Amino acid sequence: MTDRAPIPRDPSNDYTPEMAERRAAFLRERTGVTLDHVRRCSFDPSVLPGNIENFVGVAQVPIGLAGPLRIDGEHAHGDFYVPLATTEGTLVASYSRGMRVLTECGGVRATVVKRSMQRSPVFMFGSALEARDFGEWVGENFEGIKAAAECTTRVGRLVEIEQYAVANLLYLRFDYTTGDAAGQNMSGKATFAACEWIRESHPDHPKYMLSGNIDTDKKHSAINTLRTRGRRVVAEAVIRSDVLERIMRVDTRTLFRARQISNTGALLAGAASNGPHAANGITAMFIATGQDVANVSESHAGITYAQLLDNGDYYWSVTLTSLIVASYGGGTGLPTQRECLELMGCYGQGKADRLAEIVAAVVLAGDVSLGSAVLAGDWVTSHERLGRNRP
Amino acid sequence: MTDRAPIPRDPSNDYTPEMAERRAAFLRERTGVTLDHVRRCSFDPSVLPGNIENFVGVAQVPIGLAGPLRIDGEHAHGDFYVPLATTEGTLVASYSRGMRVLTECGGVRATVVKRSMQRSPVFMFGSALEARDFGEWVGENFEGIKAAAECTTRVGRLVEIEQYAVANLLYLRFDYTTGDAAGQNMSGKATFAACEWIRESHPDHPKYMLSGNIDTDKKHSAINTLRTRGRRVVAEAVIRSDVLERIMRVDTRTLFRARQISNTGALLAGAASNGPHAANGITAMFIATGQDVANVSESHAGITYAQLLDNGDYYWSVTLTSLIVASYGGGTGLPTQRECLELMGCYGQGKADRLAEIVAAVVLAGDVSLGSAVLAGDWVTSHERLGRNRP
Amino acid sequence: MTDRAPIPRDPSNDYTPEMAERRAAFLRERTGVTLDHVRRCSFDPSVLPGNIENFVGVAQVPIGLAGPLRIDGEHAHGDFYVPLATTEGTLVASYSRGMRVLTECGGVRATVVKRSMQRSPVFMFGSALEARDFGEWVGENFEGIKAAAECTTRVGRLVEIEQYAVANLLYLRFDYTTGDAAGQNMSGKATFAACEWIRESHPDHPKYMLSGNIDTDKKHSAINTLRTRGRRVVAEAVIRSDVLERIMRVDTRTLFRARQISNTGALLAGAASNGPHAANGITAMFIATGQDVANVSESHAGITYAQLLDNGDYYWSVTLTSLIVASYGGGTGLPTQRECLELMGCYGQGKADRLAEIVAAVVLAGDVSLGSAVLAGDWVTSHERLGRNRP
Amino acid sequence: MTDRAPIPRDPSNDYTPEMAERRAAFLRERTGVTLDHVRRCSFDPSVLPGNIENFVGVAQVPIGLAGPLRIDGEHAHGDFYVPLATTEGTLVASYSRGMRVLTECGGVRATVVKRSMQRSPVFMFGSALEARDFGEWVGENFEGIKAAAECTTRVGRLVEIEQYAVANLLYLRFDYTTGDAAGQNMSGKATFAACEWIRESHPDHPKYMLSGNIDTDKKHSAINTLRTRGRRVVAEAVIRSDVLERIMRVDTRTLFRARQISNTGALLAGAASNGPHAANGITAMFIATGQDVANVSESHAGITYAQLLDNGDYYWSVTLTSLIVASYGGGTGLPTQRECLELMGCYGQGKADRLAEIVAAVVLAGDVSLGSAVLAGDWVTSHERLGRNRP
Repeated sequence: MTDRAPIPRDPSNDYTPEMAERRAAFLRERTGVTLDHVRRCSFDPSVLPGNIENFVGVAQVPIGLAGPLRIDGEHAHGDFYVPLATTEGTLVASYSRGMRVLTECGGVRATVVKRSMQRSPVFMFGSALEARDFGEWVGENFEGIKAAAECTTRVGRLVEIEQYAVANLLYLRFDYTTGDAAGQNMSGKATFAACEWIRESHPDHPKYMLSGNIDTDKKHSAINTLRTRGRRVVAEAVIRSDVLERIMRVDTRTLFRARQISNTGALLAGAASNGPHAANGITAMFIATGQDVANVSESHAGITYAQLLDNGDYYWSVTLTSLIVASYGGGTGLPTQRECLELMGCYGQGKADRLAEIVAAVVLAGDVSLGSAVLAGDWVTSHERLGRNRP
Repeated sequence: MTDRAPIPRDPSNDYTPEMAERRAAFLRERTGVTLDHVRRCSFDPSVLPGNIENFVGVAQVPIGLAGPLRIDGEHAHGDFYVPLATTEGTLVASYSRGMRVLTECGGVRATVVKRSMQRSPVFMFGSALEARDFGEWVGENFEGIKAAAECTTRVGRLVEIEQYAVANLLYLRFDYTTGDAAGQNMSGKATFAACEWIRESHPDHPKYMLSGNIDTDKKHSAINTLRTRGRRVVAEAVIRSDVLERIMRVDTRTLFRARQISNTGALLAGAASNGPHAANGITAMFIATGQDVANVSESHAGITYAQLLDNGDYYWSVTLTSLIVASYGGGTGLPTQRECLELMGCYGQGKADRLAEIVAAVVLAGDVSLGSAVLAGDWVTSHERLGRNRP
Repeated sequence: MTDRAPIPRDPSNDYTPEMAERRAAFLRERTGVTLDHVRRCSFDPSVLPGNIENFVGVAQVPIGLAGPLRIDGEHAHGDFYVPLATTEGTLVASYSRGMRVLTECGGVRATVVKRSMQRSPVFMFGSALEARDFGEWVGENFEGIKAAAECTTRVGRLVEIEQYAVANLLYLRFDYTTGDAAGQNMSGKATFAACEWIRESHPDHPKYMLSGNIDTDKKHSAINTLRTRGRRVVAEAVIRSDVLERIMRVDTRTLFRARQISNTGALLAGAASNGPHAANGITAMFIATGQDVANVSESHAGITYAQLLDNGDYYWSVTLTSLIVASYGGGTGLPTQRECLELMGCYGQGKADRLAEIVAAVVLAGDVSLGSAVLAGDWVTSHERLGRNRP
Repeated sequence: MTDRAPIPRDPSNDYTPEMAERRAAFLRERTGVTLDHVRRCSFDPSVLPGNIENFVGVAQVPIGLAGPLRIDGEHAHGDFYVPLATTEGTLVASYSRGMRVLTECGGVRATVVKRSMQRSPVFMFGSALEARDFGEWVGENFEGIKAAAECTTRVGRLVEIEQYAVANLLYLRFDYTTGDAAGQNMSGKATFAACEWIRESHPDHPKYMLSGNIDTDKKHSAINTLRTRGRRVVAEAVIRSDVLERIMRVDTRTLFRARQISNTGALLAGAASNGPHAANGITAMFIATGQDVANVSESHAGITYAQLLDNGDYYWSVTLTSLIVASYGGGTGLPTQRECLELMGCYGQGKADRLAEIVAAVVLAGDVSLGSAVLAGDWVTSHERLGRNRP
């Protein structure tokens, strides 16, 4: 044992202003720091079970409003005002500028092209041959496995079980649709039930681990880029050369030339994305709307694909391959987060696709803006002018 | 032109409660949504220039307290209580449990092993030969380039210019130390000045773009993992087998076996990290402490390396290769953010290394916890019990 | 036009000793070099149509004999003597030593766990939505596509069409089994027929390119490692600690420790393989047996997975994820190549799996040898003693 | 022990026709296979020590002649006829066609832009802090290390020691220039001497392994693509649109459009190269000229970068990042191999750069040919017509 000073907790009901205050006092005593601002939240801690433990207050992250952004998606249609929670100066201004370009060009088409959330157990055998035979068994027993998995969830659906054989192991990748939830937990529970069913049903009762690390939860991976994690969403627009020159002071030919060099740089660097800065918009929207912000690690990956059209206009697209969003569950129901979702008509059931389309459209707007600004030579200067809270 | 309804702004002074309210009213009118909670922030908007534009309110992200975590670093020394801003249930509890294990085992050694922030211009030539000759010129004129770069900054220091030749292009990667700032803007400005100096000084006045996309700002990349972006930090500990079994109900032999399988899975999947979930702790600390949260895209990358020792204890380390933190500038000075930094003695100049060490130690704690919990079989169940705000 | 001096050809019959001699004379005249040895081949050029154009002679690559290697596979069973064509001193000796270790330990289990050869067309659309809808159409019309593809081949079977959506493009990856041929051409022809069928059958008659570069023919890729290209083969063995110490002078504990470091190095470096030198054995066998040696680029990728067993023995496996071999067609029927295949009972129909198993087993032998020699400290010295044809 | 039937060897002199025949007889007896063609080599085995062990004969790989290819390099200048050793039908014809295009367009510029061969030891410490301090020591003692390394070699020069810190390990990457040898052994010996010097000179006498697997010998890796392995060579040409249309029946606009899609495919697939088929030309030249063909695994990696010029012409370049070639040592002095090198004026000292330039130029020719043929729609048919030795 060691002389740890544990954080005060009340096992009977820890989600009270009193307990938050008790912890703040404990910190004050230990560190001399008073949590004046952290302590001032606008809601009662009783809404927080399932979202936090050892609650002590809130981080207040400034929200700026960007927009309007015209979107022409299957689920999002119209002009949107987007709440961006960030502390990075110029970010909201930059995204707004890109939104203006896109809106003046007629807006962004946004399309969810695939839905797939994973849990990836690994089964262990005495030999590669047994592992391979087990793989065949899994294929033949897909319906049974699916039934076992789906017992645990109302909305989750097991769509596919990918198989990856290595040594005497068989890595499986269970792919689910999970409705409007991000779905990691849903997928975890369902896969656990499925694995237990497998263990019981298969004559050899094979051993497994619930994750063999190819899910790949909370980290970027090549497998995500290829096979999708969460939603695969495309945002695309035709940028008119006159609009771009007027607003961004850059011509589409220069843009396309720069794209070649950026693509080459991304290939050279082994980058998760060949675009400018998808992570910025995604993160700011994730914080504002109560997403699991750690999923920025996966969600920022993507592929920018552009074409210079014969008339000088510019087809610009971004494909987010691993965008994880929810309109329901997790942090989406918390007070400020829900308000931000509601601003975009994205709170509650049946709204996750809409949110995904908006996020992708916002990413495109930010890329149009920064991708152009760099070439117009005002990139450093705009940071200078607006971003003074920096050394 | 198009019928956009632009967001109200006051060019003379936009950072007032009135303008925030005017924008909220604009939203109410357009969307029918009232920003009750978003509007209630504990501070005056006049502190916000340089952090946000079109300010409308705040996202309130719950902060839970984890700890104590005993750290034995060069800059962080003692027992730390860590504010984690998240909406993901069980996260704080899980990190706390890992901190308990580590603290009872004597704590975490944490070491910043490299500092390097980048801006990566690309220079364009008529042929590969000219590009190569230019590369030699850059090597010979390093001191001049360095002087030009450092003119723009008090703290930034140009340490190295990496060269990557492709076709008739030369990609450069300017590596800086940037003191206690994250340093992306500092590096951008300095590199811009350096490139202008190069353009003027080199007889051919070569053309360049300020970024050739190998920086690789706001995205994970192989080059970051290899060459570092921000800080390269190692957290390491020897986990005693008895402590692990008592608290986490798993033995070190099982842990080590699972590590082999996780390493193999990460290699197979082409993952940015072979560890459990660094992104979770990093993100929660980044939100709490006013970091640029979009840098989770880069910062979550890392390498877990473990050894089963002869006595059954377990050497567990995590190396974060691209951790971007600041103790100064950006969002660090905002009210709640600064309080959270002060809790850990990490606000202001001379504290960024300390913060980096703490972040790495927290990541290790989270990995010990989740990495063990999965094997103890209570992973799904702990999410079930605590994480009810999920579908 | 330019003053090119074209190589002499006889359009009516170019595969004669006379034409080979005429080209040699042409070279002699142009370069002053006489092809004494190149010209001396043991067979008549009339066997060469379909293998070479502008034939002028042969490269004589020395073949050394390694073995015996005991293999216990599904298709290869017994003790094998393996012809290795190489000019790298110590290679045959090293592989032989590893074979001795494996054979004394009871031999290698080898298993083909997947077969999959690709051609990957890309279809182009006006929008991501059209591309997605097309993807659904492809799924619904799999049987028609399959029938069209299989019309072109007796042995090829279309097993799956993978779909990867990016922008307004849909990349498809047609996966075939191709019997005993490597199958790239077979897959190309079949996919061309399938694409033509698609173009005619789909109401929009979509445009396509026959390869969108995700096949990924003649290059290593993450997608190959994940999804297989050619054959996925596992070779595995339990190395007895006493045998390893006696022959290789290294203990299994040291070996396992080194494996951790090699795994970490491979992850850090973004390597196509975490093993020692699969490419050496594969290349030497490919040259000897008339394989398409350029496929070393794909075939050398793989995953080494090892376990230190409780009794101190060592489970060592290598999984080749993209091994492309043929026992029929291509260069397999040429005189020396066929003899080498026959040595291992691998010539002709029904033998490709057997060859794949042997290749994997040979790779394991080479890895056991080099992986141990490095640790025994005699690696540099053995190169010194045997490898004197080097600077 | 086990009942192995060892291969006959004569420890006193194994490089005789008699011993080759004895092994052939042994095989005949064991397998029933007679090595008629393998046994017929045009030279005496006494030249083979240092290239092979257990010599039994030769693989005869057909050589076709491609060319002329006009090259305008620093070391290669003029029209070259290139010997390609392959069994793949259409390959020589295809490369020849590309060479014709390039030559009619004025030829290929080829430039060696970097030389760097590696051995990458790893040093092991008790903590990350010790590893970091050791790294500083290495930096400070570079001259001593360099002297120790260079003691072992006449031509090798230690240029740089890269450092990569992970956990309590420090991976080093010793970068050498190695003159006209491929240099793996030279680098191995020199690094071994350097490591021994370090172990003795450093106060802690740290332990090391000679390779931590980031060299990355005989495998593709991201680190090779970034940092170079062997030679980094660029081949570039401006393709005239009229020549391309006349010979290849494709226009440059189509070519450039296809390049976008191929780049995107390569990024998606995580490919080692975004070009068509560098491995084909490299492999065929490597076999013909006595290179270490296993290095195709590293050498095939590269980056294709193209620009559509305003006048419709097409700048096409390929950058081989890890091309490993030798004009001296290894297999270069064997009879047929030497003749092939001499054909191109590439045998002996001072010729490796020339060979590297030619290889890169040949790769470009092959890419021009296949990259165009695919689009002209005659790809499948040309394989059909010429490549009949296939199922």
